Amino acid sequence: MQIEELYQQYKSKMRRVADVKNALAVLQWDQETYLPAKGAALRAEQMATLSEIAHEMFADAELEGILKTLSETNNLSFSQQKNVELTLEDFNKNKKYSAAFVRKLSEATSRSYHSWIDARKQNNFSLFKKDLKALVELKREEAHILGFENHPYDALLNEYEKGATVAWLDGIFNTLQKPLKELLDAIMQKTQPNNDFLQQHFDKDKQWAFGLDILKKIGYDFEAGRQDISAHPFTTSFNAHDVRITTRIDENDFSSMTWSCIHEGGHALYEQGLPIESYGLPAGEFCSLGIHESQSRLWENCIGRSLGFIEGNFSLMQQYFPGLQEVTPAELYRALNKVQPSLIRTEADELTYHFHVMIRYDVEKKLIEGNLSAEDIPAFWNEMYKQYLGVKVPDDAQGCLQDIHWSHGSFGYFPTYSLGSLYAAQFLSYIEKQHQDLQLQIIAGNYTGIHQWLKANVYQYGRLYSSEELCNKATGEPLQLQYFMEYLFHKYAEIYQLRK
Amino acid sequence: MQIEELYQQYKSKMRRVADVKNALAVLQWDQETYLPAKGAALRAEQMATLSEIAHEMFADAELEGILKTLSETNNLSFSQQKNVELTLEDFNKNKKYSAAFVRKLSEATSRSYHSWIDARKQNNFSLFKKDLKALVELKREEAHILGFENHPYDALLNEYEKGATVAWLDGIFNTLQKPLKELLDAIMQKTQPNNDFLQQHFDKDKQWAFGLDILKKIGYDFEAGRQDISAHPFTTSFNAHDVRITTRIDENDFSSMTWSCIHEGGHALYEQGLPIESYGLPAGEFCSLGIHESQSRLWENCIGRSLGFIEGNFSLMQQYFPGLQEVTPAELYRALNKVQPSLIRTEADELTYHFHVMIRYDVEKKLIEGNLSAEDIPAFWNEMYKQYLGVKVPDDAQGCLQDIHWSHGSFGYFPTYSLGSLYAAQFLSYIEKQHQDLQLQIIAGNYTGIHQWLKANVYQYGRLYSSEELCNKATGEPLQLQYFMEYLFHKYAEIYQLRK
Repeated sequence: MQIEELYQQYKSKMRRVADVKNALAVLQWDQETYLPAKGAALRAEQMATLSEIAHEMFADAELEGILKTLSETNNLSFSQQKNVELTLEDFNKNKKYSAAFVRKLSEATSRSYHSWIDARKQNNFSLFKKDLKALVELKREEAHILGFENHPYDALLNEYEKGATVAWLDGIFNTLQKPLKELLDAIMQKTQPNNDFLQQHFDKDKQWAFGLDILKKIGYDFEAGRQDISAHPFTTSFNAHDVRITTRIDENDFSSMTWSCIHEGGHALYEQGLPIESYGLPAGEFCSLGIHESQSRLWENCIGRSLGFIEGNFSLMQQYFPGLQEVTPAELYRALNKVQPSLIRTEADELTYHFHVMIRYDVEKKLIEGNLSAEDIPAFWNEMYKQYLGVKVPDDAQGCLQDIHWSHGSFGYFPTYSLGSLYAAQFLSYIEKQHQDLQLQIIAGNYTGIHQWLKANVYQYGRLYSSEELCNKATGEPLQLQYFMEYLFHKYAEIYQLRK
Repeated sequence: MQIEELYQQYKSKMRRVADVKNALAVLQWDQETYLPAKGAALRAEQMATLSEIAHEMFADAELEGILKTLSETNNLSFSQQKNVELTLEDFNKNKKYSAAFVRKLSEATSRSYHSWIDARKQNNFSLFKKDLKALVELKREEAHILGFENHPYDALLNEYEKGATVAWLDGIFNTLQKPLKELLDAIMQKTQPNNDFLQQHFDKDKQWAFGLDILKKIGYDFEAGRQDISAHPFTTSFNAHDVRITTRIDENDFSSMTWSCIHEGGHALYEQGLPIESYGLPAGEFCSLGIHESQSRLWENCIGRSLGFIEGNFSLMQQYFPGLQEVTPAELYRALNKVQPSLIRTEADELTYHFHVMIRYDVEKKLIEGNLSAEDIPAFWNEMYKQYLGVKVPDDAQGCLQDIHWSHGSFGYFPTYSLGSLYAAQFLSYIEKQHQDLQLQIIAGNYTGIHQWLKANVYQYGRLYSSEELCNKATGEPLQLQYFMEYLFHKYAEIYQLRK
C-alpha cells in the first residue's frame, strides 16, 4: 500500500518533469517551423529557462528519497522495477554534473554553434577552431565526470547508445570496412543507372500531397501528429499522441522529399507506438538512438527503397507526377539506389553512408583520446575522404564543417546512424521470417505486418530493455553484421548485376 | 550600488517568470492552431503544470524580500519605482489566494468549460446551470478574498480594468443608454443600406492575401509575428518581438475576415510596440484590457470602417475581388456600417454592440450581488434583449450560451469591450487634433501618423500608468463619453441621413 502510494508519487513527479521537457520541445518545434525572425533571441532565453527548470525539478531531493525506497523493495512489478532502476540511474548521472559545469558546457555549446554557423557560411574553418577546441576539452572533462572503464569516448557514446564502447564499435567498423570497400569497388566497375529523370520539375503541392498519402499508407496517425515544413527535416514528440514531423520540398528533385517523409515517418511511428500510459517514465521513452534510427532506416531504405514498395506505389506516383510517365518501376528503383561516393553524408547512398560515419567516428575518437587536435581536423578529414571514398574535398564547408553535431557538443552521436542500419537489416530479416510473403504484402501496399511486428517487438517496451536486450528479445540473438551485409550485397548484386 | 544589484535580481527573476508564462502562451497558441486532436489531453496537463510553476516562481519568498527592500528605497528611477510598486501589488494579490482555493477554482472552471461546450452544442442551458452556479459562488468568494470597498463586483472588474467600479460603470452605461437607444430608434426609421453584395463568393486565398496586405499597410511587423488560422480569431504575445494573430475565413462573407484582421492587427500593433527591454516587467506589459480593446477598436472601427479607409483601399479590394466591381466605395462603407439589432454580440454593429455589453454587465452584477441565480439567467437575458434591442431570443445557444467568458470564470471582462470603444473615440479625436489632415492621410493609405501617436501616447508606457492616468496624459482629461457619442452620431447621421 505505502509502496504503491510512493510509486504514484514518483510517477506524478516524473510526469511534471516530462510536461516541462515537452513544453520545451514545443518551443523548439515552433522555432524550427513558425517562429518569426525577431522572436529568436527571447525564444532562446525561454528555452534556456525551461531547461533549467526541468533540470532542477529532476534533481529533487524528495524524488531521490522515493527512488531509493522504491529501489529497495520487492513489491514492484517488472516494469515498475525497471522504471525505478532506470530513473535512479538517470538521477545519479544528473547529479554528477555540477551547476558550474553545466553552465560552462551550455555557454561553450552556444558559442560553438554560432561560430560554426559563421564558419560554414564563410567556408572558413578557422572561425570555428577555437570554440571547437574548448568544447572538445569540456567533453573530455565530461567523459571523466561520467566515468568509464576503458576509453573516455565510451562515456560519451553511452549517452546516445547505452552500452556502446570503442571496443565494440571498432569491431563493427573494422569488420564492415573491407567488404563494403570491395562492394563499392565492384559497383564502380559497372555501368551506373540513369537517374537524370529524378531531377526535373516536380510540383511542390503535389509532392506535399504525395508525402501525406505515403505517410498515411505506412500507418502514421494524423490525429496524433502533423507534418510541417522546416529547413532540416526532423521528428519531435510531445507525447505519443502528438508526434510531429517536418520535411522540405525541392521542386527539382523527386527523391529528396518523399524518402525523407518515409524516414521521419519511421521515427514517428515508433514515437506514436510508445505506450502513452507510461508518459514521463522510461517505459514510455524510446530505447536508444540506434534503435530509433533503425526505425527510420527500416522504413526509408529497407522498405521505401525496395522494388516492391516502388511497384506498389508506382501508379500513384505517375498520377501525381507526369514526369514519371516514361519511366518503369525498375528504372526508378535503380535510380533511387544509385551508389556514388560523395562529399555530403546526408545525401549518401546506403553503402557509402557508412564511410561517412566511420570517418566521423575516427575523428571523434582521436579528439577525445587527445590524439588529434581540433585544428588538425580538416587535413585528417580530407585524407580520410580520399582514402575511404576516393573523393577530393574541395573546401571545409563541404568537408568537416557540413554537420551540426559537433557544434552542439554531440560527440558520440554519429555511430548510432550506422547502428540503425545494422539493426534495421536484422529486424527486416526476422520480419521476413515471420511473413514469408512480405514482398507481396509490400507490393500490395500492405505494411501492417511490418508495423505489427515493430509494435510487438520494439515499440511496446519503451526503454525498459537496452538495445542489446531488445535485439535479443526480438530476434533471439545480439546484433549481427551479417544481416546488413547480406541485405546490401543482395540489393546491389541485383541492381548492378554483380556476381554473387 | 547594492540597490542596483537588487534591482537586477528582481529583473532576472521576473524574466524567468515571464519565460514560463510565455512558454505557456506558445502552448496555448499551438493548441488553437496546430494541435492534433489526440494531443489535447496531455497538452492540458502540460499547460496546467506550467501554470503551477509560474505561480510558484512568482510566490518566491526571496523575490518578496527584494521587492520590499526596493520599495523602501529612494534610489530608483520613476519607471523602476513603478515596476517595483506594481509587482509588489501583484505579489500581494497573488498571496491572497490559498493553494486550495486556486485548485478549487481551476477545477470548477475546467468543469464549467466542458459543460458549457455541451450545453451550447445541445442548446440546453440546464447542462451548464449547476457548474455555472458553483462557479458564481466561487467568484463571489474570490471577490471577498481580493477585497473591495463598495461592491463585490468591483474586485472582479478590477482584475481586467484596474480602478473600474460598479459606481463608475453604472454611470457610464446609464449615460450611454438613452442617447444610444434614441439613435437606434432614429436609424430604424430610415431605409437600410443594401449589404447583400457582402454575401457572395470571396475566394479564400485572395481573402488571406488581402488580409496580409492590409496588416502590412497598417504597420504590423511580420518579422515580429505571423498570422494563422484558428476557430476564433485572437492575438497572443510571447514578447514584443513575437506577437501572433489568427483569423478565420468565411468564403461567403467579405466583411468577416478583413475587419477581424484589422481588429487583431490593432491589438498586435500595441503588443509589438511595448518596450522589449522591459520584457517581464510591468513597463513591458499592456495597460489594461480596456486600453487593449481601444487599440483593436480604433483600428477596426474608427479607421477600418471609415469612408476614407475604404476609399484608400478600394482599388486593391477590386483587384482581389471581382464581386466588388459594381459597388462604389460609399456603398461599401454604408453596407459595412449597417445598424441592425441582433442576437449575437460578436456580429453586432458599433451601436447595438454596447447593449449586448450592458446586458451582460447587468447579469454579472446581479449574479455577484446574489440578486440573480444562475438558473434564472435565460429568462432575465431574454427579457433584456427584448427591452434593449427589441429582439426575441429563440433559444439559449443564440442567447445566454453564446459567449465563452462565464465558462472560463471571466466575470468582469465584458465591460472592457465598451470601455475600448470609448477610449478609442477619445484617442481618435486627439489624433485628429494633432493631424488636421487625418482623413486625407487615411485616404492616401498613410497610417503612420496614427501609429506614431499611439506609440508616443500609449504603447511606450506599458502598464506604468493606469488607464485613467494614461488617458489623462494622452488627452489631458479623463475618459469622456462625449467623444464616443459624437463619433457615433456623426457617423450614423452621415450614413442614415439623420438630422443632427
